[in-house]
Amino acid sequence: MDRISGYPLPVKIAGLGRYAPSQVITSSQLEAKHGLEPGWCADNLGVTRRCWAGEESPSFMGAAAAREAVTAAGLDLEDIDLIINASTTANFEKLVPDGGPLLQRQLGLADSGIPCFTLQNNFLSFLNALDVSAALLITGRYQHILVVTAEVFSFNLDFTNPRVFGLFGDGAAAAVATLTPEGEAGGIVDLCLETFGQGAAVVQSAIGHAMVRGKGLTPAELAMQMDADALNKYGNIYIRKVLEKLSQNSAMKEVKWVIPPQMGKMFSEPVKEMLPGKEILQISDRFGFCGAASIPMALYEVVKEEKLTRGDRFLAVGVGAGISVGGMIMTY
Amino acid sequence: MDRISGYPLPVKIAGLGRYAPSQVITSSQLEAKHGLEPGWCADNLGVTRRCWAGEESPSFMGAAAAREAVTAAGLDLEDIDLIINASTTANFEKLVPDGGPLLQRQLGLADSGIPCFTLQNNFLSFLNALDVSAALLITGRYQHILVVTAEVFSFNLDFTNPRVFGLFGDGAAAAVATLTPEGEAGGIVDLCLETFGQGAAVVQSAIGHAMVRGKGLTPAELAMQMDADALNKYGNIYIRKVLEKLSQNSAMKEVKWVIPPQMGKMFSEPVKEMLPGKEILQISDRFGFCGAASIPMALYEVVKEEKLTRGDRFLAVGVGAGISVGGMIMTY
Repeated sequence: MDRISGYPLPVKIAGLGRYAPSQVITSSQLEAKHGLEPGWCADNLGVTRRCWAGEESPSFMGAAAAREAVTAAGLDLEDIDLIINASTTANFEKLVPDGGPLLQRQLGLADSGIPCFTLQNNFLSFLNALDVSAALLITGRYQHILVVTAEVFSFNLDFTNPRVFGLFGDGAAAAVATLTPEGEAGGIVDLCLETFGQGAAVVQSAIGHAMVRGKGLTPAELAMQMDADALNKYGNIYIRKVLEKLSQNSAMKEVKWVIPPQMGKMFSEPVKEMLPGKEILQISDRFGFCGAASIPMALYEVVKEEKLTRGDRFLAVGVGAGISVGGMIMTY
Repeated sequence: MDRISGYPLPVKIAGLGRYAPSQVITSSQLEAKHGLEPGWCADNLGVTRRCWAGEESPSFMGAAAAREAVTAAGLDLEDIDLIINASTTANFEKLVPDGGPLLQRQLGLADSGIPCFTLQNNFLSFLNALDVSAALLITGRYQHILVVTAEVFSFNLDFTNPRVFGLFGDGAAAAVATLTPEGEAGGIVDLCLETFGQGAAVVQSAIGHAMVRGKGLTPAELAMQMDADALNKYGNIYIRKVLEKLSQNSAMKEVKWVIPPQMGKMFSEPVKEMLPGKEILQISDRFGFCGAASIPMALYEVVKEEKLTRGDRFLAVGVGAGISVGGMIMTY
């Protein structure tokens, strides 16, 4: 095999899909239920509504998004030769096995043998999986990789903290990745991924050692918790560094759309300040923060509305649990 | 970027490390405690002892193996530019974040920014991550990728079923992957990975919808469970198919060592039958079945004892939760 090096990686998003749970929870409903002032969520978090899963499991939601993505790519499910489950909540449905086989079963491919694995890099899982897909496509082993992100946080949020239960939403999105045909422009232009384990407790579901010796787990131990002040402080520092690094790439000039971290008002400043004149797509006012699904859910929207067309460049940036932070410049 | 295709992928295991918990549990101890006949575990499972973690967390164990692997590769920890946590029990320590940042923190790299992610393909996680590492190394983004597998099952096994609690052990192993220097032979020759989601309940920790609406989880709901008869039946069918596929590669003839599924007596027959004359390395008699860690733990041993040296070929085969099954032919 030849040695190759360097980006851009010739990968194309051949199709996109999205699924939002049918149950819409308005901020007014949450404010009334939890004794918050009317308008608190919109004023403090920038979120007016979100969808929360009812009976929908992560694999059900992921499969719905995946079917749409495969159809949009002009393919049949059987054309897929690798499924990557790229979700923060990869193990909320079962601890073992991972969400890959569960997704495959939901897609009616349970006896297909199509390989599946889960890639989890917290709220960067989708971008990370897209980059890994590109590398795998280049080796020639796979032709059509399905990347699926499905997040259900509403199972067990910290309902004592309105900055948590007011922010998180549930949602799913999927993409089919293929090698870019000769003559087309699609590709991953640049990527920056960083992890700072010192912030591992800033956003967490601290199942931890409560499991030791069969003690079971209380709802509080399972709850998704967030220290919003700490996340705001460190996240802002880290995001600025990521944007500085990516800005050294001359391709940044041609970026048309920016998908910023979808945490409402949090982190909107460094993006606006450091990327003047770019179109910024924030969907968290309507969907809340859907973890790793937020970025592909936003991308789906801008493609569907034909605001981003083939050959256009976009930048997606994320931050969250880990603390993991990163950004990708891509030509759609 | 150029297009390339096909295996072998020029990746080298530059260093290996292993960690087994200090607490050794003999089969006699288990038999006495759980009212089994003396010798039951050896006779029925092929396991005489296993190590079970005491206070050791998965990230602690993984970090210990990782340090040894990095030293064996002649590197410093700071030379590592990507950490992949490749464990079935990736989320047993916390549900969020994944084990990547926890491992990074244990390695004293918590403010390094070195990117981390978790790749989970059940008991094939290590082989799958090694293949992904190869693809990522080829893109030129990374130079030294640390793949770490750390499994702690003893937290919460199904203690009503001796075929489960007698079989599983805890353990960790790590490898540093780099591009193979010109003129050396190391590489991934062939890989077969398959997933059959129809068997998703055969080996499971069924955390599932018990989490819904903050009900908490009982020890029984968290327990690692296995339907040994079903695993035996389907696993044997799937393994035979994987071995048939890999046997079509002429490189199979030159395979010196075979690392079979490390589940004691289970699955020893198809390997012996279909690969006559090969040296077979089974370590589960002494370590039990350590999930995804079993394969690199066995590889560590055969390299350490200089039974496998540079240029030698080996085949590793695994099966388990998912149901995932697969094998890799590699030149060490």
